[in-house]
Amino acid sequence: MSRSNTVFIGRKPVLNYVLACMTLFKSGQEEIFIKARGRSISTAVDVVEVTRSRFMPDLKVADVSIGTEELTSQDRPGPTNVSTIEIKLHR
Amino acid sequence: MSRSNTVFIGRKPVLNYVLACMTLFKSGQEEIFIKARGRSISTAVDVVEVTRSRFMPDLKVADVSIGTEELTSQDRPGPTNVSTIEIKLHR
Repeated sequence: MSRSNTVFIGRKPVLNYVLACMTLFKSGQEEIFIKARGRSISTAVDVVEVTRSRFMPDLKVADVSIGTEELTSQDRPGPTNVSTIEIKLHR
Repeated sequence: MSRSNTVFIGRKPVLNYVLACMTLFKSGQEEIFIKARGRSISTAVDVVEVTRSRFMPDLKVADVSIGTEELTSQDRPGPTNVSTIEIKLHR
């Protein structure tokens, strides 16, 4: 799996990820992916909206897909389901 | 705007909204919309994933769109931008 055009969203401030997206586009990518799980899903949407409204008005959301991933944690017995989002952006 | 086929996601437990979706489908709707803003966006994705995986395996996500809404609050001067999501489900 190539990750050179993917930004994984975690718990840092929104602008950190906005900067990561801008950097990927500046490096020549035409298309990037934003991925997030669980509570970070809302941050992922924030990142797209802030990038689009403040920095790249011509940014297109090419696709949004949602899904579920099974995680195993040492804290809990058995697998836990967590929701995921993948947003494909095209400039 | 017709709201009879729309579930608005707030801060209640996920299963409350899952039940709301099921009820709409049972009432004869072929297509329903899930809408959420801000932090509730991740709950909206959870609602879709739980409904699909536990109760309606044949449920299709027909479309996901994201956007921004401007809110005015009495607590803060000026408008605040909030991210939104709208998920269209088809059975």
